[in-house]
Amino acid sequence: MSNISGIAASSGIAIAKVYKLAVPDLSFEKKKVDSPEAEVKRLKEALEVSKQELEIIKENARKNLGDEHAEIFSAHLLVLSDPELIKPIEDKIKSDNANAEAALKETADMFIDMFKAMDNEYMRERAADIQDVTQRVMAHLLNVTFPDPALIDEEVVIVAEDLTPSDTAQLNKQFVKGFTTNIGGRTSHSAIMARSLEIPAVVGTKTITTSVNKDDLIIVDGIDGEVIINPTEEELSTYKKKQDDFEKQKQVWAKLKDEPTVTADNEHVELVANIGTPEDVVGVKNNGGEGVGLYRTEFLYMGKTELPTEEEQFEAYKSVLDQMGKDQPVVVRTLDIGGDKELSYLKLPEEMNPFLGFRAIRLCLERDDIFRVQLRALLRASVYGNLKIMFPMIATLDEFRQAKALLLEEKENLKSEGKDVSETIEVGIMVEIPSTAVIARQFAKEVDFFSIGTNDLIQYTMAADRMNERVSYLYQPYHPAILNLVSNVIDAAHAEGKWAGMCGEMAGDSIAIPILLGLGLDEFSMSATSILPARTQLRDLSKKELSSYKEQLLAMSTAEEVEAFIKEKTNQ
Amino acid sequence: MSNISGIAASSGIAIAKVYKLAVPDLSFEKKKVDSPEAEVKRLKEALEVSKQELEIIKENARKNLGDEHAEIFSAHLLVLSDPELIKPIEDKIKSDNANAEAALKETADMFIDMFKAMDNEYMRERAADIQDVTQRVMAHLLNVTFPDPALIDEEVVIVAEDLTPSDTAQLNKQFVKGFTTNIGGRTSHSAIMARSLEIPAVVGTKTITTSVNKDDLIIVDGIDGEVIINPTEEELSTYKKKQDDFEKQKQVWAKLKDEPTVTADNEHVELVANIGTPEDVVGVKNNGGEGVGLYRTEFLYMGKTELPTEEEQFEAYKSVLDQMGKDQPVVVRTLDIGGDKELSYLKLPEEMNPFLGFRAIRLCLERDDIFRVQLRALLRASVYGNLKIMFPMIATLDEFRQAKALLLEEKENLKSEGKDVSETIEVGIMVEIPSTAVIARQFAKEVDFFSIGTNDLIQYTMAADRMNERVSYLYQPYHPAILNLVSNVIDAAHAEGKWAGMCGEMAGDSIAIPILLGLGLDEFSMSATSILPARTQLRDLSKKELSSYKEQLLAMSTAEEVEAFIKEKTNQ
Repeated sequence: MSNISGIAASSGIAIAKVYKLAVPDLSFEKKKVDSPEAEVKRLKEALEVSKQELEIIKENARKNLGDEHAEIFSAHLLVLSDPELIKPIEDKIKSDNANAEAALKETADMFIDMFKAMDNEYMRERAADIQDVTQRVMAHLLNVTFPDPALIDEEVVIVAEDLTPSDTAQLNKQFVKGFTTNIGGRTSHSAIMARSLEIPAVVGTKTITTSVNKDDLIIVDGIDGEVIINPTEEELSTYKKKQDDFEKQKQVWAKLKDEPTVTADNEHVELVANIGTPEDVVGVKNNGGEGVGLYRTEFLYMGKTELPTEEEQFEAYKSVLDQMGKDQPVVVRTLDIGGDKELSYLKLPEEMNPFLGFRAIRLCLERDDIFRVQLRALLRASVYGNLKIMFPMIATLDEFRQAKALLLEEKENLKSEGKDVSETIEVGIMVEIPSTAVIARQFAKEVDFFSIGTNDLIQYTMAADRMNERVSYLYQPYHPAILNLVSNVIDAAHAEGKWAGMCGEMAGDSIAIPILLGLGLDEFSMSATSILPARTQLRDLSKKELSSYKEQLLAMSTAEEVEAFIKEKTNQ
Repeated sequence: MSNISGIAASSGIAIAKVYKLAVPDLSFEKKKVDSPEAEVKRLKEALEVSKQELEIIKENARKNLGDEHAEIFSAHLLVLSDPELIKPIEDKIKSDNANAEAALKETADMFIDMFKAMDNEYMRERAADIQDVTQRVMAHLLNVTFPDPALIDEEVVIVAEDLTPSDTAQLNKQFVKGFTTNIGGRTSHSAIMARSLEIPAVVGTKTITTSVNKDDLIIVDGIDGEVIINPTEEELSTYKKKQDDFEKQKQVWAKLKDEPTVTADNEHVELVANIGTPEDVVGVKNNGGEGVGLYRTEFLYMGKTELPTEEEQFEAYKSVLDQMGKDQPVVVRTLDIGGDKELSYLKLPEEMNPFLGFRAIRLCLERDDIFRVQLRALLRASVYGNLKIMFPMIATLDEFRQAKALLLEEKENLKSEGKDVSETIEVGIMVEIPSTAVIARQFAKEVDFFSIGTNDLIQYTMAADRMNERVSYLYQPYHPAILNLVSNVIDAAHAEGKWAGMCGEMAGDSIAIPILLGLGLDEFSMSATSILPARTQLRDLSKKELSSYKEQLLAMSTAEEVEAFIKEKTNQ
């Protein structure tokens, strides 16, 4: 029995057996076979079973996470049916009397090496696809179990180095009670997915994969970021109580689902949700969200082989607006691709520092052929609800002016084609680059609103990659410089009669919420599951009192000072 | 005859024949030889000539740029004498009757592949060393000319994709009249070296290597960033006049060498130089520098196989202080390694975004064993002149406090060892991370001075990698956000009776100088060759007038507005 600490990535307590997600030993002996026909038959069977598994995985991904997420598995299925790959394997078996394992491995490696060697991201992804699926086939040939989150049929906690998008796409909440990983932080992909799926998770434990064995019982405490391995009876009962308390707490929160968000001194703020797909709106409704504060449109573009059409996009945007109704705001962020989010079919050049590179609005302004399609889809969908559009990664007023000009051009185009377009769409920007936060006053004269993207704003302001564990101590949301920039943005908005929101992880954080309320933030956008805890917290906070600390907070020297001060004032 | 535009990287006009710096065709035919002994003899001769060339290159590097720069060639020479590499080549010739070319290539490739495959930066650099030197040997075997800037013995302009540190180390100013490259920007290594060597240069031309042929006559206009290929008689005489004018201008500047730096309204500011090695001090003196505003200590650590000792460092720091005398300030920046500047022997892990990674003070605080050696060397040297110490990449007050505590600890240690240490060393920081610029007021209470590092400050504030050409349009020194941050730092310093300098490229820019003077900057640190032009410019500027534009400039919306305004007010 021992404890490992990590980063609390998604609230709740999970207690279940360990399920290790790792590629098993796929080593084999190369040999000559007597009957090549029998080997070809074995190969075909392994291919068939692998296809059936992938169909299940794809269907699970579609159900759990939506069509966009399922697309990657269509690509995998295509590989398994590709005669250019399968035929050479069969030939090798027949001509060399090779066993199926050797023929599969040698052929796959040849293609993988060939694709990898090409200086082309798309081809390298194809290499990764071939590797993924041929490993699955190899596992069947060798009769070893290939771990598939989608095939889990008993209650488990998943333990892994990290979870890829295709791993999380396969998680079935009925059986996967929680997960814990070696790497990652609160804003890593796997952490965001855990909150979206409402599965308790602890990430960044560094050593969990080597600290547990298959079938160990473990407790994942996603509230305090602890993992307990083979707990004692006493620990087990302590955590079962903590689990119960959390469930009861959730029921208390649930009572506030249809209540307005008001502070102790009766001030209203808006609590809205971050979503990635139209399917996520259900979670927003279930958690009492008052709107969508950030609709990330990247999923429409990812895991595909080509750009989404105007019609596909229109349907997605319309679906979200329809579900949210005429009044509730839906803030859509235009394409934020590049950086760590690549689109293989766009063939972007590799960059030395992708987070400081050619991404988001920078790419959209150069590739306005892509951008205009999205703008048209958004404009056409605008008549179905309360749409607001925002541009990501704006660093200069020029960029905003150019992006807005394209929007207005497409609006005129649509009108001259006889299409309906809303006349009341607000057009704003993400504030996630320091330059824009610094001269927010200049921007406030031209934009309709600000949404502060703290995940990026913090990493740029501190010059520390939020994915890089060696500098993660510098990812400090309460650093006085961050508070000064946030305050500057809010004041600038209010000076021009505009509103300011926040759609980074910080907006749902219980230390940050009182600070932001005191700085005057109008809209808080967060993971859907954070909304009810935030509403509960806000009912006990006095905006007037917190506003009175503003100057004091902004003049503090360190994040530690800020945190200690707020904890004391709000009894946390 | 045609023109190509690029980025003016180093002032002046060069007119000379093209010298293309590129690896020549090294292809060969693999064959069986009759006399392996004759092949071994050919190999040994090629090795011997290569060694002699490398000795010359090393000596040139030492003379032109100092001992530190020459070290990389010692490593290359070691490779050529390494029996572990040479013996297998000879064996292959003897056992396979292989020709020397084939034996060399196959053996070298085996080692290169082996080292490259290791997940270890040090080993990968060894692979690069082997590639470099075996290419040279191959060229001799094939009797083709291997381009060596160090062996140039007639006047040329070098044309290359880019210049590596080892290329620039070999440039002989007597023959290399200028250079022009496809890639790079004003702050790239090759541009900084060009200014340090006072060689005209145009970088970032994108296509120069494919636009010229060997022996074409070209003009490199490092003043306006133009390259003229095979000029007409008329163009030639125009540029010869421009060259003459520039030389005359330099003579006018030279008259101000020993004059104080005063503005038209008789205000003094300090004009100091950025240096990389003790050898650079000669240039500072020749150009009338009033001190050293940035001594980059990285060269002491680079191109070596192990860390420099305390004694080596002490000698370097003492040399600079001795040369600058008792009064002139020498601001030494402690080790800024990591990011794009790697040290093979430190074996740092690869990072996804090295500019946002584990570098400079972040590394020094974790590896205080390395840091303390530097601090001790600096403290011991402090009695020889007017030493100021500054820490790079400070993002939080905690980091500054920790770094300063280590300095004070080592000071006490030295004193208890009976060593002399100055009691008047100022301890300041680089302001190059947005967070620090934003809360400069909090920092100003604890530091002795600020030096604004605009190269990094701009890239972080705009979230745009300054080395990445696709986003280079966002590297905007005149962006109002940059001006607001710079102004905030200066005001914060003055409010606490401290001084604020700038040591980025911006400090020597003729548009920025009037702005910075108006914002109240106390110290301008720049390439030595920019000092006299800056002093000349400052004599015509009124600080009072420029100060009166401050609020107007800070409220502007775009860099273009700022630039147009300043150009008009200062007749540029």
